[in-house]
Amino acid sequence: MAKLNKLERQRRLKEKLADNPFLVDKELAELFKVSIQTIRLDRKELGIPEVRKRTKSVAQNAYSKVKSVQSGEIIGELIHIELNKSGLSILETVNEMGLEKSNIVRGHHIFAQANSLAAAIIDTDVALTGAAEVRYDRPVSVGERLVAQAKVTDKKENKFHIKVETKIKDEVIFAGEFVIFAVEDEVSGKEEK
Amino acid sequence: MAKLNKLERQRRLKEKLADNPFLVDKELAELFKVSIQTIRLDRKELGIPEVRKRTKSVAQNAYSKVKSVQSGEIIGELIHIELNKSGLSILETVNEMGLEKSNIVRGHHIFAQANSLAAAIIDTDVALTGAAEVRYDRPVSVGERLVAQAKVTDKKENKFHIKVETKIKDEVIFAGEFVIFAVEDEVSGKEEK
Repeated sequence: MAKLNKLERQRRLKEKLADNPFLVDKELAELFKVSIQTIRLDRKELGIPEVRKRTKSVAQNAYSKVKSVQSGEIIGELIHIELNKSGLSILETVNEMGLEKSNIVRGHHIFAQANSLAAAIIDTDVALTGAAEVRYDRPVSVGERLVAQAKVTDKKENKFHIKVETKIKDEVIFAGEFVIFAVEDEVSGKEEK
Repeated sequence: MAKLNKLERQRRLKEKLADNPFLVDKELAELFKVSIQTIRLDRKELGIPEVRKRTKSVAQNAYSKVKSVQSGEIIGELIHIELNKSGLSILETVNEMGLEKSNIVRGHHIFAQANSLAAAIIDTDVALTGAAEVRYDRPVSVGERLVAQAKVTDKKENKFHIKVETKIKDEVIFAGEFVIFAVEDEVSGKEEK
């Protein structure tokens, strides 16, 4: 994006955050090719709180809705959830997730965020993954921030199809289709043997 | 399997272990519906060492062959590897991998074993997962032992297709197809940003 004058930048900043309230100042600064300080000033002038404030309240009641897994079992921070419909989580990638040699985040962490989010949005005692088809669009470096969005695209009886898209800033870096079965406790008990 | 007389059982025991040397006494006992002690006696009489001895030597030089990842980055214990051809790893599932509510192992751990094994067998500096298609055949309970086998099924330039099958005893519980790209360090460096 070319450097913009202040008014134009603030207009687009508002648009961006309306579209994706989870962008942090650092990401916005890179997006608009300005300093983080400039973004902070812009937010002040526009009366937009910082990202944690923007998302905190949403996040709190998101966890309270989850039935199928314990909140600690969700990889990443659950930000938003609408049972049997959609959900959103954010994963801050850290060194432990990266390959020593290259600092590239190992694929299964990106999968885990998507899979645990897909399971979390299902309104059931136990959500069992039946199948998954995933695509990695580019390597993710340690430190990059992954925003995963899940949507239920189909539901037949206890069988859910869930589409998950994971982005860094506005770039899709991972996409997956999960088939998840909703089972009640006693049923899963049987299946466990 | 119906209960067998001793000779018949020992004959089949030999067959089973020739076919899959990674079966532990507990699994063999369940398979043959006899006590673990009986299996131990059978092995003694047949001169078959216990599983760790059977697999230790293989395991040791397996790690030494891996190039694309650090051994600690492989989920499960790497038992066998033939670069650009095949590999085998064993994952003992523990409580931390299970859903609190149901003791069912979360799918992404099973995925992680398969994905890290698929990457480990590639003869390259950095192995990047491009896509995966996986199937879970039944829930896995904490404590069950996962034996994953990976085979390179296709290779075009730096693009590998790898099939992974994960079994508990003789039962396939997970199958996956991974597309993995072999990149040299400097290339992945570029791709990282």
